[in-house]
Amino acid sequence: MTVVNDLRRMFRPASIAVIGASREAGKVGYSVVKNIVEGGYRGGVYPVNPRATEILGLKCYPRVADIPGPVDVAIICVPAAIVPSLMAELGAKDVPVAVVLSSGFAETGNQGLHSALVDAARTAGVRVLGPNIFGYYYTPVNLCATFCIPYTKRGSIALTCQSGGVGMAVIGFTRAHGVGVSAIVGLGNKADLDEADLLEFFAQDAHTAVVAMHIEDLKNGRRFLEVAGRVSKVKPIVALKVGRTESGARAAASHTAALTGEDSMYEAAFRQGGVLRARTLEDLFDWARVLTVLPPPPGENVVIHTGAGGLGVILSDACHDHGLRLMAVPPDLEHKLRQHIPPFGSFTNPVDITGASPPETYAATARLLLMDTRVHSLVFGYWQTIITPPMAFAEAIAAVVDEARAVGIRKPVVASLSGDVAVEDAATYLEERGIPSYPYAPERAVAALAAVYQWSRHRASPVTGGRADLSAPRP
Amino acid sequence: MTVVNDLRRMFRPASIAVIGASREAGKVGYSVVKNIVEGGYRGGVYPVNPRATEILGLKCYPRVADIPGPVDVAIICVPAAIVPSLMAELGAKDVPVAVVLSSGFAETGNQGLHSALVDAARTAGVRVLGPNIFGYYYTPVNLCATFCIPYTKRGSIALTCQSGGVGMAVIGFTRAHGVGVSAIVGLGNKADLDEADLLEFFAQDAHTAVVAMHIEDLKNGRRFLEVAGRVSKVKPIVALKVGRTESGARAAASHTAALTGEDSMYEAAFRQGGVLRARTLEDLFDWARVLTVLPPPPGENVVIHTGAGGLGVILSDACHDHGLRLMAVPPDLEHKLRQHIPPFGSFTNPVDITGASPPETYAATARLLLMDTRVHSLVFGYWQTIITPPMAFAEAIAAVVDEARAVGIRKPVVASLSGDVAVEDAATYLEERGIPSYPYAPERAVAALAAVYQWSRHRASPVTGGRADLSAPRP
Repeated sequence: MTVVNDLRRMFRPASIAVIGASREAGKVGYSVVKNIVEGGYRGGVYPVNPRATEILGLKCYPRVADIPGPVDVAIICVPAAIVPSLMAELGAKDVPVAVVLSSGFAETGNQGLHSALVDAARTAGVRVLGPNIFGYYYTPVNLCATFCIPYTKRGSIALTCQSGGVGMAVIGFTRAHGVGVSAIVGLGNKADLDEADLLEFFAQDAHTAVVAMHIEDLKNGRRFLEVAGRVSKVKPIVALKVGRTESGARAAASHTAALTGEDSMYEAAFRQGGVLRARTLEDLFDWARVLTVLPPPPGENVVIHTGAGGLGVILSDACHDHGLRLMAVPPDLEHKLRQHIPPFGSFTNPVDITGASPPETYAATARLLLMDTRVHSLVFGYWQTIITPPMAFAEAIAAVVDEARAVGIRKPVVASLSGDVAVEDAATYLEERGIPSYPYAPERAVAALAAVYQWSRHRASPVTGGRADLSAPRP
Repeated sequence: MTVVNDLRRMFRPASIAVIGASREAGKVGYSVVKNIVEGGYRGGVYPVNPRATEILGLKCYPRVADIPGPVDVAIICVPAAIVPSLMAELGAKDVPVAVVLSSGFAETGNQGLHSALVDAARTAGVRVLGPNIFGYYYTPVNLCATFCIPYTKRGSIALTCQSGGVGMAVIGFTRAHGVGVSAIVGLGNKADLDEADLLEFFAQDAHTAVVAMHIEDLKNGRRFLEVAGRVSKVKPIVALKVGRTESGARAAASHTAALTGEDSMYEAAFRQGGVLRARTLEDLFDWARVLTVLPPPPGENVVIHTGAGGLGVILSDACHDHGLRLMAVPPDLEHKLRQHIPPFGSFTNPVDITGASPPETYAATARLLLMDTRVHSLVFGYWQTIITPPMAFAEAIAAVVDEARAVGIRKPVVASLSGDVAVEDAATYLEERGIPSYPYAPERAVAALAAVYQWSRHRASPVTGGRADLSAPRP
């Protein structure tokens, strides 16, 4: 597909032109060159600026035409008014994509300039990313074509966003959770390339496992639906649709000239396209991350395991809210659990091993549940006790999960932890071992597991027939 | 009031008896003595155990009656079956409150033992906290009468909970946020003392500013409503009602023998009693914390201040969702803002100073908004840029807030931060200066501000007439 070929050149360029490159620290055209270089990109970097001979040690060219050899992408940092006039030049040089960082188009009411850009790009055969964006990242080649900061921690989440603030937030969020990204792409005003185009690319990108999307509007809902419906069968798509409310829609209009539209329309489109809908930025990031970490559940049977009955109650409520089914513990499994749990515990679901349990009881009961093929996923609700401190819990659970993996058993496991701040270290330990873990926030553990279930159900649903089973209600 | 006098003795005891104190590490009766001593409590501690002469260096007494001088509270760690038989002894010694940690009462179906305890306590004139609890904390006197861990970080949040897991979670949450608690109280099965009794105490407790409640059921809804309606006019009450769903209700029945009841009934009761209803544990803690930190807003006019238009959109949606009103920026204020913001920014609300702004622009525009008496509260949506790194933002904002405070201007300010992990340090810096700050989670900043608005509106609403204005809808 043409657009995928164009985007392949943009994401894995052999050479990059930065038009409007600057020697002046603090300028966008300076930061972009600096970030590309400091990020560790290995290809050719060609600053373009008729009034400079060298920028950050790189030879500077007066015009794109003067660059020797082919150029795979042009990053544009010149004032908005002259951006359309560059398109013919780029076309002549066979540059497939212009990444337009410049602001001052439709988002400030300048619809004329927007149309001029669209027309010029189309005539020249150049695809446009933006305008009004911070740029993009693609970690497989250490590419930081942005005026923000370098970020090259590799992972398998690709994020498209209409806001630099959202793009920057995913950097800290993923780093804080010890994961990374494959790509972060600013879409801004979407004069040309949009979510559907990026989905086509990420669908075939071996470095991307999950696509997260921050959406202010969809300019071509039908095409998005068609592409998302296809891609979501292969890779999970999570979306945060903003500008849902009157206040938000007004803000979006002045941000990216977005016509945010009726929220119910998006709700239906996401459902039909198999797109998981997050309600907050934190959920968007967290679900995307968890979808890259957890295996698909082999079935609907969820079991809650806790040492604090009260956490069991909270987790049960959350399971109900998120459409997860608590398995009725079969008598033979209950019998085995009873060997380890005091009589005042609970052997139904939630399984409550009580606060008096040592690490061995955590391990023994977790093992029974993990090894039982009728149990398809596990939610732990740990609370700190003197007899089983946070790290003892974390080590016990991680060891049992490892045992299970060693015999080929892979099912989603999430944990919530209550206690003093030491539970934060225990959570990090578990996360490093593929167990998403939530200190002080039991409901978030369940929400994350539910995201995995939602996608799993969607993937298993018939391809035709439209409506995907994304029916988990929100509280 | 009698119950308040009894609870005063329980929270500020001159002496404590621990019945069932043990020399054996790992036993509840050992941990309780250890935590009381290690927590730094200065009063008399009297272990009671007929088979020991000394526990942790403290002289041991065979029976309560043998303790010299008065006893203000008895912590009970003996097997459930013999708990009722202790009540007469406690009554004879004039011990006002028995804190029953023992499990094995109604929560395991032993209704008979429950009734025996209630009857014996009533006959003896002893109030009962619990049974089936982890104990309680009261930081003003460094009292850790619990089998969990010592925790003495002082703050002004009092938490009542029906779960040790919830009680432990608040420890880590508050410590992580640099705040503390006044009290953490386990209520468990509530054979006698309940939320209403604790509310009466906390209402008059100078060390408590906010009461947070984790509730599985209310055994006397009418009394709770009466007391909460009165107390909530003086101090904010935030509640998390769990066991809302069928799964949760089942779990609650086996946890604290709770009859969780219809959720709609609780919804109405909370509304009428002026109780802020949190939907997640994290919200319960966070709103309580923010209510101890932020001043009441002088009015309804909220302004969003951001450097990233996209964060402005997300924050606007959240304001709408939480019933907050975005002020229309008056022309004279807009004129002043325009002196500092590039023309492609936004001068309406959200105020978007754009990503190209240096710290001085953050300070100047924040100052204009903070000093303007028509602006009643501020939400910052920061995103990391090279020109204004996270700590530069934090220092600029904190300095301006200090300036405002110095001239007597106090309005709620919250911040959300997007960027690399450095924003977490910036958030901590702001939090230490009384500005609740949320990395990667803009919606949570607004939810927290909304909690302050909810209480402020409730406090201003007429005392009679029943229905409080707690009408902010949830997304």
